[in-house]
Amino acid sequence: MNPLPELISRGEEPLNLEMPFSSLREFVTPNEKFYVRCHFPVPEINPVVWRLRIEGVAEPLELSLEELEAMPRQTIQATLECAGNGRSHLQPKVKGVAWDIGAVGNAEWAGVLLRDVLERAGANGSACEVILEGLDHGMIKEPPRPPNEINYARSLPIAKARQDVLLAYAMNGAPLAPEHGFPLRAVVPGWFGMASVKWLQRLVVTEEPFHGYYQSIDYTYWEDRDGMPTLVPLTEMRVKAQIARPEAGEVVPAGAAYRVHGAAWAAEDEVARVEVSVDGGDSWAEAQLLGEPVRNAWRFWEFEWETPAEPGAVTLLARATDAAGRTQPAQRVPEYGTYMINHWLPIEVQVR
Amino acid sequence: MNPLPELISRGEEPLNLEMPFSSLREFVTPNEKFYVRCHFPVPEINPVVWRLRIEGVAEPLELSLEELEAMPRQTIQATLECAGNGRSHLQPKVKGVAWDIGAVGNAEWAGVLLRDVLERAGANGSACEVILEGLDHGMIKEPPRPPNEINYARSLPIAKARQDVLLAYAMNGAPLAPEHGFPLRAVVPGWFGMASVKWLQRLVVTEEPFHGYYQSIDYTYWEDRDGMPTLVPLTEMRVKAQIARPEAGEVVPAGAAYRVHGAAWAAEDEVARVEVSVDGGDSWAEAQLLGEPVRNAWRFWEFEWETPAEPGAVTLLARATDAAGRTQPAQRVPEYGTYMINHWLPIEVQVR
Repeated sequence: MNPLPELISRGEEPLNLEMPFSSLREFVTPNEKFYVRCHFPVPEINPVVWRLRIEGVAEPLELSLEELEAMPRQTIQATLECAGNGRSHLQPKVKGVAWDIGAVGNAEWAGVLLRDVLERAGANGSACEVILEGLDHGMIKEPPRPPNEINYARSLPIAKARQDVLLAYAMNGAPLAPEHGFPLRAVVPGWFGMASVKWLQRLVVTEEPFHGYYQSIDYTYWEDRDGMPTLVPLTEMRVKAQIARPEAGEVVPAGAAYRVHGAAWAAEDEVARVEVSVDGGDSWAEAQLLGEPVRNAWRFWEFEWETPAEPGAVTLLARATDAAGRTQPAQRVPEYGTYMINHWLPIEVQVR
Repeated sequence: MNPLPELISRGEEPLNLEMPFSSLREFVTPNEKFYVRCHFPVPEINPVVWRLRIEGVAEPLELSLEELEAMPRQTIQATLECAGNGRSHLQPKVKGVAWDIGAVGNAEWAGVLLRDVLERAGANGSACEVILEGLDHGMIKEPPRPPNEINYARSLPIAKARQDVLLAYAMNGAPLAPEHGFPLRAVVPGWFGMASVKWLQRLVVTEEPFHGYYQSIDYTYWEDRDGMPTLVPLTEMRVKAQIARPEAGEVVPAGAAYRVHGAAWAAEDEVARVEVSVDGGDSWAEAQLLGEPVRNAWRFWEFEWETPAEPGAVTLLARATDAAGRTQPAQRVPEYGTYMINHWLPIEVQVR
């Protein structure tokens, strides 16, 4: 059963829920509207006996939730987007959870910095990566696959791990809900959601690159190198603007003022510009960015649209550009496979 | 059509042929008995216009066949085994070419050392790998797959590339046949055949690890690291003994002397011992290694078997141990997936 009725179910075993993006209102997404992505059943965890183990370090240690909460508390906002958000719009259809555009949300996370935990455990200078392992586990069914059950796990380069990664025990002021990773999850600012491992049970500091399932087979894409495709793990989110309203198929009044609005996000650099087209991409006009930029959070935007006097179908598009000049491609990039869906997405509406 | 009638066809598009292993006689496998493994159609190459390009170096260069032949000539023996050799014996059945046990052969290769070519091109000290790219190309059909046609390509760590890898233009004294990689192929001693890239067109020296299709999706296996499976490219062959005669299903005379014989091979260390069991693995007796060890080549062996006086079914096994003490596992290792099939392989015969 879907435990969060405000969300749309994209599968219950494992649990996958998304926000109806047309319901976008709050800059900080309420917990009950925040998308849920699971790979295996949600683990049931007793917080009293639960420990976070840190291995591959000078002084391997185990930390209880109480001990983590006693460390310096850090609060950040971070927008997380599932790497497959928008997948149902790909042509031809591909495998994977058939997300519309609501597998994205922005929350305020509280916890301890990963770098503080690494320092406490005496992680040394020759480390190359930190592997984050969750308690969620199960069998992979499609080959190529490991022969036995695996736990969800993903690694971070040591530089990112030491920069701004949070081990969060609270989301918007409340303890994490089970489906959001209770009692502890990673929040990796700027990266697609697959990096923000939930239900953490272990950190392994390693001197060699990790090639676990979720960064070698799954959550990867093909990058050209010297004319040859090479498989690369997904990392940072791609710059993207999404239209919340009007939504696809919406009927809008003719010859009226309509407030087009939505959100835009990027990774390392902030969103510098959002443009809207109301003629299927032939011409573009700048939208207004709202509020002030918040580091690692999305930016809301709006655009005042004078709808046509004549009834008919209209195709709207939005596109974002970040401060480094990165923008969205007009067409789908085939090398991205089933991920990083940030080409222009047409929203067709009816003017009446 | 199968161009080599002494071989058994395992597919003609692409061409895959194996030696009937029971026909093992010559220590140096004649060219027309050497197994053929292709991933795409055999490229037709005009040797007059063909060039080997070397990139990622101080002085990128192109070498003609004539120029390569004018460099110092090196001759080596090397046994090559397909990483999937023996696959048809896996239970349950798996995808991939259904090799019996004849995807292995030993030849005398002549050519230039890869290290001489790298030196001539000024490959520098910060190099990490050398990518070897063939002219054979096509689409991968099964996901996860690159979206466009790819060329067969694989990389070698720079240390191996500088050690003993040969770029061969001759096989057993004759120019390479088209199906063996004419005009130039790699021969990577001690490694499974997938590393010995055929129809070479390009070497790319790189400072980052390459994750091409044939070492990230295909030709990989799962290795446990800290309790988590991590995907590793196949490299060195695994120690293995194979029985040529008797073959499975053979009728052998009761109460007679029968010469069991076969070949054994390993990778870095030489074969130190071959044992035979004529009771399904309950007891083992040492076989006799024949001749002198030849570096990187297989070792022939024989075992004088006094067959039972009573008729009935008998299960024979052979197992090899290398000089470092590595030996064959009794049971299949599930993490090896569809490759590295070196567990004890029972050969059932009828005594009459």
